[in-house]
Amino acid sequence: MLLAIPKEEFKARQERFFEEMNKKKCDAAVIFAVTDIFYLTGFHFHPTERPIGLAVDPNNETHLFVPKLEHQHAEEYSVVDYVHSYPEFPGIKHPMEYFKEILKKFGFEGKSVGYDAMGYSSAQGYRGQTIDKLIDVNEFVSLKWVIEEMRFVKSDNEIELIKESCRWGNLAHRLLQKYTKVGFSEIEITSKASMEATIAMVETLGPDYKPHGGTASAIFRGQIGPESAFPHAVTQHVVMGKGCTLVTGAGAGVFGYHSELERTMFVEEVSKEQEKYFNYIYEAQETAFDAIKPGSTYASVEEAVQQYYKNEGITELTLHHTGHNIGLLGHEAPFFDLGDDRIIEPGMVVTVEPGIYVNGLGGFRHSDTVLVTEDGIEMLTYYPRNLESLICK
Amino acid sequence: MLLAIPKEEFKARQERFFEEMNKKKCDAAVIFAVTDIFYLTGFHFHPTERPIGLAVDPNNETHLFVPKLEHQHAEEYSVVDYVHSYPEFPGIKHPMEYFKEILKKFGFEGKSVGYDAMGYSSAQGYRGQTIDKLIDVNEFVSLKWVIEEMRFVKSDNEIELIKESCRWGNLAHRLLQKYTKVGFSEIEITSKASMEATIAMVETLGPDYKPHGGTASAIFRGQIGPESAFPHAVTQHVVMGKGCTLVTGAGAGVFGYHSELERTMFVEEVSKEQEKYFNYIYEAQETAFDAIKPGSTYASVEEAVQQYYKNEGITELTLHHTGHNIGLLGHEAPFFDLGDDRIIEPGMVVTVEPGIYVNGLGGFRHSDTVLVTEDGIEMLTYYPRNLESLICK
Repeated sequence: MLLAIPKEEFKARQERFFEEMNKKKCDAAVIFAVTDIFYLTGFHFHPTERPIGLAVDPNNETHLFVPKLEHQHAEEYSVVDYVHSYPEFPGIKHPMEYFKEILKKFGFEGKSVGYDAMGYSSAQGYRGQTIDKLIDVNEFVSLKWVIEEMRFVKSDNEIELIKESCRWGNLAHRLLQKYTKVGFSEIEITSKASMEATIAMVETLGPDYKPHGGTASAIFRGQIGPESAFPHAVTQHVVMGKGCTLVTGAGAGVFGYHSELERTMFVEEVSKEQEKYFNYIYEAQETAFDAIKPGSTYASVEEAVQQYYKNEGITELTLHHTGHNIGLLGHEAPFFDLGDDRIIEPGMVVTVEPGIYVNGLGGFRHSDTVLVTEDGIEMLTYYPRNLESLICK
Repeated sequence: MLLAIPKEEFKARQERFFEEMNKKKCDAAVIFAVTDIFYLTGFHFHPTERPIGLAVDPNNETHLFVPKLEHQHAEEYSVVDYVHSYPEFPGIKHPMEYFKEILKKFGFEGKSVGYDAMGYSSAQGYRGQTIDKLIDVNEFVSLKWVIEEMRFVKSDNEIELIKESCRWGNLAHRLLQKYTKVGFSEIEITSKASMEATIAMVETLGPDYKPHGGTASAIFRGQIGPESAFPHAVTQHVVMGKGCTLVTGAGAGVFGYHSELERTMFVEEVSKEQEKYFNYIYEAQETAFDAIKPGSTYASVEEAVQQYYKNEGITELTLHHTGHNIGLLGHEAPFFDLGDDRIIEPGMVVTVEPGIYVNGLGGFRHSDTVLVTEDGIEMLTYYPRNLESLICK
């Protein structure tokens, strides 16, 4: 049972990054994006006012730069050559002054230095200098998107972690369905399902399990009854009524990896009208599954789904594209979108979630997490998709 | 019972922002920070690949720019003059092309345009043009930090919402303490306490309650036993043992507002050594409470606490500053930090959380949420702080 990315894989990711640096003629690099730092080093960090950075020096040695309160944690859990820390932010001496000393000591001056952003940024009160104010270099070279693109195709280990996430998302969703009954409130149902799935997961997986994200959860995010027509509604703690259309969501963090499972469900009974819209999204999702082929563009999947909508005359009920990559973040590029001409490749993990929204009646959307294979797809989520299975009794 | 910021207060915030724009000689402005947009308009948004923006035109009319799937939600819940939407990201026509048309139509060209960032940014796959590529203006004027600084002093309504948050954090913490027993796992205890507090909160407050953030929760974030020496440890699902040192955390989102309640607790029994360190942080917190006075600097509070540590000879056990403002974000500027010379003012809401960390034994930290008054402080959190009350039996 795999519950973490092995150290060797972090090392291999770093080697691939050094190659990317090389292609862009960078001698060294500075990275501030928290997700990308986790991807390269395994260091999991909640961003606050305190800056974090990763520096790759001209000898390809890696330096993690963290606040003192994370130092020991970084030493224990991250795959880097050096951990450096600063006392506090803002401090009498600003963290970026410490960072400057590290960059100077390890030979960044006069070099071609790659970067993803010119400085750390955070909504939580951080202010500080950009790196071009810290050191004189030969040139700064943008490496923006480079690590994001490295993350597009998942390794076998990443796929295993996503599959583990799917298992516990499935349990959370099963419990959500079981507890969905007339008269119960949204939060009661979701809290109970999420708690029980989380406890089962933790007790099953044991002490090596680290979520690095949320544990198992199943939610409605307010998408209950007519409110389900808001595709990104917020929790409304609605009380379940007979015949409500529900749009659910379930998943679980496994070493930072995510999956997505969403279902359109109905409370006790379903009307002919609800069934009609349910069938549209069932078919739209089938259309998308059929269209996902390595070598095709992301846009081509959306085009196929849009063509289906057009044939059925329901284009005006749609509000969003058909899906996106998923992995360390809940939404990752590329997107099944008319404007995204990137190419589908084996090893990519995507969500497939066409949706339609009918004012006054509700939203209709299934979402599945799907692996692109050499010749099509493998479903990673496996919760039933058919109408009969999704009526909460 | 206040559960939301009234519409008039959003209007008043906008008026204050227009004044700030005026001071900086801006005719118009463009804002991308999600928290600041919520502060000005009440529009709550989970940032994804899809950009959002707020524009203030030269007539001081406000324009919210959202994806189509948020349009109806924005119309219902936000306090703005216009809601504009684009079909999807990236789309055949990029969202920023739609934004450009809005800026042109409403007279931003040739004007002095304030901004907080030159474009939307998101880790979740967004890519797009900066606003200087969209329109020709007289000049772009940075308004970075302006709205953050408007948020420093809380209104009476904001304080009421934070007090409501404190109530439910208190309940979650009470349940956490009640369920903390030898042999129970971290996640079991925190899930149960969080769930029951959330259900009680939701059923008490009724349908007008909107968390706009997490509902009630109480956690250990892995700070159990020797692991509590990691101040920002992540969930470890440790099993409680007799004599463990615990560092807790509890809170609840109320219309986006947060509070912070943290306690050092012990399972069943406490050693002389644990008691010694407990007493240090109790006294350090008292020292901080005494030092918080309107007109003083944030640094002066940290200096007082540092002097206490020095007198006791425990400086080397400290890892972080004494606290920070709190409100729409869990951490907000200014900070009780040696390097923060900003002035404490009545109406600011701060956390007071000196901590010490003893390797092999654990962490010791209480955190309380405190309102700065005309002549000192008012405690907003009210959970017992004394040792006897914090031994879990």
